[in-house]
Amino acid sequence: MSKGRLEAFSDGVLAIILTIMVLELKVPHAADLNALIPLAPKFLSYVLSFVYIGIYWNNHHHLWQAAKGVNGPILWANMHLLFWLSLIPFVTGWMGENNFALMPVVFYGGVLWFAGLAYYILTRAMIAHHGQDSLLAEAIGRDTKGLWSLIFYTIAMPLAFFAPWVAASLYVAVAIMWLVPDRRIETKLRK
Amino acid sequence: MSKGRLEAFSDGVLAIILTIMVLELKVPHAADLNALIPLAPKFLSYVLSFVYIGIYWNNHHHLWQAAKGVNGPILWANMHLLFWLSLIPFVTGWMGENNFALMPVVFYGGVLWFAGLAYYILTRAMIAHHGQDSLLAEAIGRDTKGLWSLIFYTIAMPLAFFAPWVAASLYVAVAIMWLVPDRRIETKLRK
Amino acid sequence: MSKGRLEAFSDGVLAIILTIMVLELKVPHAADLNALIPLAPKFLSYVLSFVYIGIYWNNHHHLWQAAKGVNGPILWANMHLLFWLSLIPFVTGWMGENNFALMPVVFYGGVLWFAGLAYYILTRAMIAHHGQDSLLAEAIGRDTKGLWSLIFYTIAMPLAFFAPWVAASLYVAVAIMWLVPDRRIETKLRK
Amino acid sequence: MSKGRLEAFSDGVLAIILTIMVLELKVPHAADLNALIPLAPKFLSYVLSFVYIGIYWNNHHHLWQAAKGVNGPILWANMHLLFWLSLIPFVTGWMGENNFALMPVVFYGGVLWFAGLAYYILTRAMIAHHGQDSLLAEAIGRDTKGLWSLIFYTIAMPLAFFAPWVAASLYVAVAIMWLVPDRRIETKLRK
Repeated sequence: MSKGRLEAFSDGVLAIILTIMVLELKVPHAADLNALIPLAPKFLSYVLSFVYIGIYWNNHHHLWQAAKGVNGPILWANMHLLFWLSLIPFVTGWMGENNFALMPVVFYGGVLWFAGLAYYILTRAMIAHHGQDSLLAEAIGRDTKGLWSLIFYTIAMPLAFFAPWVAASLYVAVAIMWLVPDRRIETKLRK
Repeated sequence: MSKGRLEAFSDGVLAIILTIMVLELKVPHAADLNALIPLAPKFLSYVLSFVYIGIYWNNHHHLWQAAKGVNGPILWANMHLLFWLSLIPFVTGWMGENNFALMPVVFYGGVLWFAGLAYYILTRAMIAHHGQDSLLAEAIGRDTKGLWSLIFYTIAMPLAFFAPWVAASLYVAVAIMWLVPDRRIETKLRK
Repeated sequence: MSKGRLEAFSDGVLAIILTIMVLELKVPHAADLNALIPLAPKFLSYVLSFVYIGIYWNNHHHLWQAAKGVNGPILWANMHLLFWLSLIPFVTGWMGENNFALMPVVFYGGVLWFAGLAYYILTRAMIAHHGQDSLLAEAIGRDTKGLWSLIFYTIAMPLAFFAPWVAASLYVAVAIMWLVPDRRIETKLRK
Repeated sequence: MSKGRLEAFSDGVLAIILTIMVLELKVPHAADLNALIPLAPKFLSYVLSFVYIGIYWNNHHHLWQAAKGVNGPILWANMHLLFWLSLIPFVTGWMGENNFALMPVVFYGGVLWFAGLAYYILTRAMIAHHGQDSLLAEAIGRDTKGLWSLIFYTIAMPLAFFAPWVAASLYVAVAIMWLVPDRRIETKLRK
C-alpha cells in the first residue's frame, strides 16, 4: 500500500487548517489604525498557531520521508492526529477573541496535548509496521522532544490558573524548541 | 487515462469538506466554560461526520489502489459521490445546531444513504470498466458492509420519528462497523 | 517545463471552489421542514454550479492528458480561466439568494460566458505551443461544443430580460450537453 | 530530501488563499444592479490580489523547477513566505471594504513588502543549499525584478499619505512588471 495519497490528503488538511485560521481575523469596518488594536491578540494567537501547524507539517514531512508503507492502524492514527489539529483554528480563535483568558488558554494547551499524544501514537503505529530495527524506528528514536512537549503542556495548563500568560509563554517555548529542525531523521537517512 | 488527478481532486474535496465543518463551531464571545456548553451537540455532530469522511477517504483510497484506469462514467460516478459528501457539512451543522432534533437527524441519514448509494454506483462503474474477473471486482466482492450500511440507514430514518437518538445511535453503529479497516482489498492485493 | 504542478494547483482551486459554495447554504436555526424551504433556490443554484465545476474539471483533465508541456502564456491563460471560475461561488450565491431574479441570472450567464471564453483562449495557447499538427490540436479540433456554449450563453442573457427562467433553462441545457463526456480526446489518444 | 511535498503543500496553501478571498465579496441581499455598486472597490481589490497570488505561484513554480533538494532552512523560509501571503486576504478585504483608504493601502503595501522580502530570503536559502555556481543560482541571478519590487513598495507606502491611489497604482505597476513571465530560469534550463 503506497503512502502517496496519505501524504497528499494530510498536506491538504494541514494547508486548509493553516489558511482558514486567517478568517478569524475579521476585516474591520473602520479604516484607521485604532480598528486594528482589538485584532492584536487574535493576530498573536494566529502567529503562534501558524508556527505550530508549520512544525507539525515539517515533522510529518520528515517522518513519512523515512516511511515505506501504510496499513490500517497507521491510516487511522494519522486521521486521529488530523482530528486534533483540526480543532486548532477553534481554540486559536477563542484564545484570540478573549485576549488570552484562562479557559481558552487551558483548552489551547489541551488541544496541543492531544495532538502531541496523537503524533506519538502515530510514530508507534509506524514503528510497529516497519519493525523495531528499521531505519524509521532508529530515526524516530526515543522522540525526546515529543515527550518534553507533552510534559511542558502538562505543566502549563495548571499554571494557567495562576497566570494565563505563563502557560502561553510555555507554548511559545515549546514552539521555539521545535523550530530547530529535527536533524535526527535527516542524519539517519544520509548514512 | 490515468487515475492520478481523479485521486488528487477527490483528496482535495474530502480534505476541504473535513476542515470546513469545523467552521460551524463558532468561536464563543465569552471565555468561561459555560460558553462551551451550547457547542456540545455541534461538537458531537462534528466528531461523527469527521469519522464518516475519514471512512470514505479510507475506502476510496483502498478502492483506487486496486484500480487501473478511469473512463467517463467512472469520473461522473465519483463526482456524484463527492456531491453527496459535500452536503455533509450542511446536515452536520443543522443537526448540531438543533441538538439532534427529528428533521435534521432524518436528513443526515438521507445524505448518508445517498452517499452510500453513490459509492455503490461508483464500485459498479469501476467493475464494469475493469471486468467481472478483474482483481478489482474480486477485491470489492459483494460489498456486504456497503449493503448493510444502506439497510441500517433505511431502518434508522423512520425510527427517528419515534426517537431521534435511536437513529443517531444507528449512524454511530455503522461508523464503528466501518472503523474496522476493510481488509478484503488489502488481502487480495497481497496475493 | 512540467505540467504536474499546474494540474495540482488547478485541482486545488477547483476543489475549493466546489466546496466553499456549500457554505452559502447557511444552516437554519429552526429544525422543521419549513426552515428548508427558503434554501430550495439556493440548493438548485448549488447543484447547477456543482455540475458546471465538475464539467470544467472533467474537460481540464481531458485537455491536459494530451498536453506535453507548459509555457508562460499557457500558465496565465490557465490562471485567467481560474479567475472566472472563482467568481462562480459569488454568482451562485447571488442567484440562489434572490430566487433566480433577473440581474443575478444575467451575471451568472456572464461569468459562464467569460469562463467559456477563457477556456477557449487556453486551448488556443496550448495549440500554439504544441503545434497545429500535434495530437493535442487534432484532439481539440474545432471545439464545437465550446463554441455552441458561448452562443447559448449569448442568447440566454438577453432572454433573461423577458423571463429569467428561460435563461436559467438554457444554462441547464448547456450543462446537459457537456455531461455527455468529451470522447474526442479519448478517441484520439487511443489510436 | 525530496521537494515534492513542499511544492504540493505550497500549492495547497496558495490555492486556498486565492479562493477564500472571494468570500469577502459578500452576496448582496438585493437583486438589482445598485446592490453591486458597493462591491466595486472590493472587486478591484480582489482582482489585484488574485494577480499577485498568481504571480507568486508562477515564480514559485519556476524557482522550484530548477531546485534539486530541500533542507531545514529552506522549509522554514518557504513557510515564512506563506505566512505573509496568508495575510493577503485580510488586507485585500480591508482595502476593499474601505474603498482604498489610507491605512489599508499602507498595510497592503506592507504585506507585499514582507512577502517580497520573504521571497528574497527563500532564494538566498536555496542558493546557499545548491551552491553559488549551481544552475539555480545562475538562473535566479541578481533578481533585479524582486529588488525593484521592494523599492517600489518602499516608495509607495509613504506616498499613500499624500494620495492613496498613487500607492495603489504603484502596486498595479509592479504587478504588470511581473506579468511579463520570468524568462531567466526558462532560458537557463533550456541550455
